[in-house]
Amino acid sequence: MANTTWSRRHIISLIDLVAEEYETILKTAASFREVLSRRTKKVPALQGKVVANMFFEPSTRTRSSFELAAKRLSADILNFSPGTSSLTKGETILDTAKTYLAMGADIMVIRHKQAGVPLTIAKAMDDLGAGVSVLNAGDGQHEHPSQALLDLFTICSLLDSKDPRLELLKGKKIAIVGDILHSRVARSNIWSLTAAGAEVHLAGPPTLLPKLFSEMVEDDRAKLLKLDWQLEPALKNADFVMTLRLQKERMNQNLLPSLQEYHRLYGITRDRLELCRSGVQILHPGPVNRGVEISSDLMDDPQLSLISQQVTNGVAVRMALLYLIGSTKS
Amino acid sequence: MANTTWSRRHIISLIDLVAEEYETILKTAASFREVLSRRTKKVPALQGKVVANMFFEPSTRTRSSFELAAKRLSADILNFSPGTSSLTKGETILDTAKTYLAMGADIMVIRHKQAGVPLTIAKAMDDLGAGVSVLNAGDGQHEHPSQALLDLFTICSLLDSKDPRLELLKGKKIAIVGDILHSRVARSNIWSLTAAGAEVHLAGPPTLLPKLFSEMVEDDRAKLLKLDWQLEPALKNADFVMTLRLQKERMNQNLLPSLQEYHRLYGITRDRLELCRSGVQILHPGPVNRGVEISSDLMDDPQLSLISQQVTNGVAVRMALLYLIGSTKS
Amino acid sequence: MANTTWSRRHIISLIDLVAEEYETILKTAASFREVLSRRTKKVPALQGKVVANMFFEPSTRTRSSFELAAKRLSADILNFSPGTSSLTKGETILDTAKTYLAMGADIMVIRHKQAGVPLTIAKAMDDLGAGVSVLNAGDGQHEHPSQALLDLFTICSLLDSKDPRLELLKGKKIAIVGDILHSRVARSNIWSLTAAGAEVHLAGPPTLLPKLFSEMVEDDRAKLLKLDWQLEPALKNADFVMTLRLQKERMNQNLLPSLQEYHRLYGITRDRLELCRSGVQILHPGPVNRGVEISSDLMDDPQLSLISQQVTNGVAVRMALLYLIGSTKS
Repeated sequence: MANTTWSRRHIISLIDLVAEEYETILKTAASFREVLSRRTKKVPALQGKVVANMFFEPSTRTRSSFELAAKRLSADILNFSPGTSSLTKGETILDTAKTYLAMGADIMVIRHKQAGVPLTIAKAMDDLGAGVSVLNAGDGQHEHPSQALLDLFTICSLLDSKDPRLELLKGKKIAIVGDILHSRVARSNIWSLTAAGAEVHLAGPPTLLPKLFSEMVEDDRAKLLKLDWQLEPALKNADFVMTLRLQKERMNQNLLPSLQEYHRLYGITRDRLELCRSGVQILHPGPVNRGVEISSDLMDDPQLSLISQQVTNGVAVRMALLYLIGSTKS
Repeated sequence: MANTTWSRRHIISLIDLVAEEYETILKTAASFREVLSRRTKKVPALQGKVVANMFFEPSTRTRSSFELAAKRLSADILNFSPGTSSLTKGETILDTAKTYLAMGADIMVIRHKQAGVPLTIAKAMDDLGAGVSVLNAGDGQHEHPSQALLDLFTICSLLDSKDPRLELLKGKKIAIVGDILHSRVARSNIWSLTAAGAEVHLAGPPTLLPKLFSEMVEDDRAKLLKLDWQLEPALKNADFVMTLRLQKERMNQNLLPSLQEYHRLYGITRDRLELCRSGVQILHPGPVNRGVEISSDLMDDPQLSLISQQVTNGVAVRMALLYLIGSTKS
Repeated sequence: MANTTWSRRHIISLIDLVAEEYETILKTAASFREVLSRRTKKVPALQGKVVANMFFEPSTRTRSSFELAAKRLSADILNFSPGTSSLTKGETILDTAKTYLAMGADIMVIRHKQAGVPLTIAKAMDDLGAGVSVLNAGDGQHEHPSQALLDLFTICSLLDSKDPRLELLKGKKIAIVGDILHSRVARSNIWSLTAAGAEVHLAGPPTLLPKLFSEMVEDDRAKLLKLDWQLEPALKNADFVMTLRLQKERMNQNLLPSLQEYHRLYGITRDRLELCRSGVQILHPGPVNRGVEISSDLMDDPQLSLISQQVTNGVAVRMALLYLIGSTKS
């Protein structure tokens, strides 16, 4: 593996990740992607270590990706099922985490519907002097760092498959379209993409894209973030379009008139891509509502859709993250 | 392992399996059964390969059997839980399959309550040029090939434990008794047993055994298939009796008067076995309703019941199937 | 591992465990705890063996502990999920066990809400001549041997970390406080602690601690067991205090007025520990209702609470139990 200088024990948020850290992640993920193309796809990097998959919010896709990443690093995995857990018996989340710590967990991969839970656990573990690492696998509407990092890796790899690096994104324009308000994926991507010097143009209906998002990024990165309630300005000359999953319960909350109406105004279609730069490609964190966020034919077009590559790269990026934080334990 | 000439990428149905393929499966399963009798029961045949257990219809028994088979071949396993999956978020089954493909699945073991799902996924994967293999672990009332193959292996092994082969079944009579209409196990067994030249005699109540079953098999194999609404003609001189699980919801559907009535007419008992050839043995795919399909004492009689051997052979046969299709990937 | 003379195939109850067996377990667990402190925490002791985790009653904590123990012994694990199992299809528990036996299970770790199920399965397996081992992971209100053994190991290790042995407990006083009536943990601990020659003083409200408990232990161990409906006599000069989980459904059963009232009368607090011997330490099987069985600050005090050590030792003790019974199979 890369001779790194990684020192961060937890990965909770991308807000303060620095360029050197992004580069280390990209480089490490690239080396693991190479491992995944071999006949024997395993490395002994985390042999004997225990990765606890603590998905308080159920998930198959992200959990499977982390599970496979951990297996390919030869770690042992403990899967936590909230439905049958002590939580239903009144135990606090922190006590559950302490139990996994005492059992011998080296890394806790945590998803929770409430923002802040992974950070709270990470701080509590540090206060105990535990060497355990916490990786945020999605917390409420806060952040989903591994998703944004796999998006970054996918885009950079497309620009230079041999040497994906941050500077490749400088001056590129990425449109993020949809329900920004409720999206932890959008928030994490805003941090990573502006850190790379890319222009990030948010687009969505006013109910799902409050004006205050335009003030999310400060300093010299502030000018990289734009916001529009119309789709067209965001798509114009975009190099990449990232659509977000629209959750159907938003209808019941009166935030949207109908899925048809949403698709009419914000759905990504072949016609609309005419506005973008030639060679534009589309990302989506999945699962996709076909015909809502994106037209069905676009999604299946390997020339335009990066969705499969995102999933594939997800395993390599998560291997990199587990490897990097798993090696900080003293 | 056997020096095979296996070329089939998917195992979806037994309808067109040819004698040479059956022989390869029997021979390979026999060699794996030998592995299972060793102290160390593992072989590195699928090391680094990923088997995705995609049981859209819940199952413990068949899933565990495939999981153990995959582990003993040293594969990595991804377990999919429909309850917590993206399917509940509106993703299509095909998109779920593509996600597992993108994550690196080499073999997808698929069970679904709708007939045709494994075939649909296999075709879609081939259209994408993916080298992934699909193994049907039971689709609706269509087929359950691995069950029929373990039944075949169990019967042939009984006739010659060292060299189980298709010709041993020639001229043997197998009675299949019960709810043929709703049984994917019966359908797959009809293909395999008639391919081996055995006489297959179906018996069950008219509501659960429509006349058209007698026309299921064509050509020279047609004369091997018989059908009766009475139990006695089927049992007469039978070498093997295969009873099928009776699902209790058939009562509510007015297809049966009562479980007692069913047992009185079609239940396998010690008395009724007098009609069969001496040395007759009983198969059941499990789980059994004791006292309904079969009397409780018969089920527990190791001289008469092959149920435990079926389960044990199931692991060896599934190892064989995973190994054979897992080696076709280019 | 220790050169043992272990001959017990199943671990169902501690009622008749003899001193030599306790010593073997303590010694073996100590050697595995040493393994767990190494960089590579795995040993090949159960390579190729299959441990079936049959938790008919859901559990995350105990199941994870057994799973990790089995993984660190290099065993293959089959997880059984009652929700999706054949049990919902009418199969008997014994037939489920026979299925796992036929699949190749070497050890069955069984939890069931009904007392006696692990014993019934163990007897049935022996009657079949199966070499399989059964380990009771908690059956109704009967016993939870692995919990009591990890409690024993935790206490003995505290008294002599290098050489935890039974005699260290001679003359020590242990208070067991709370809902004794419904506690399988209390029952198993009464057997192990009195076998070690410790004084066991039970305390709890009359509704949850019937008088007949004072007659549970016979012979010369009878004088070691005391019972009080007041907390103070039990705590007086206690060396260890073991609090039990209070299940909230006891309120609805009119066995308790309120959680507050319970805490006021039987909750362990810093003040009350003044009654105990200096250096007293607290155990709890978890999960804890903070502020009910024990005050929140006590629970988090590493000088007083042994809860984390219990969890950590649980993995080592379960490795020892799986190893010992896994080696009896002929």
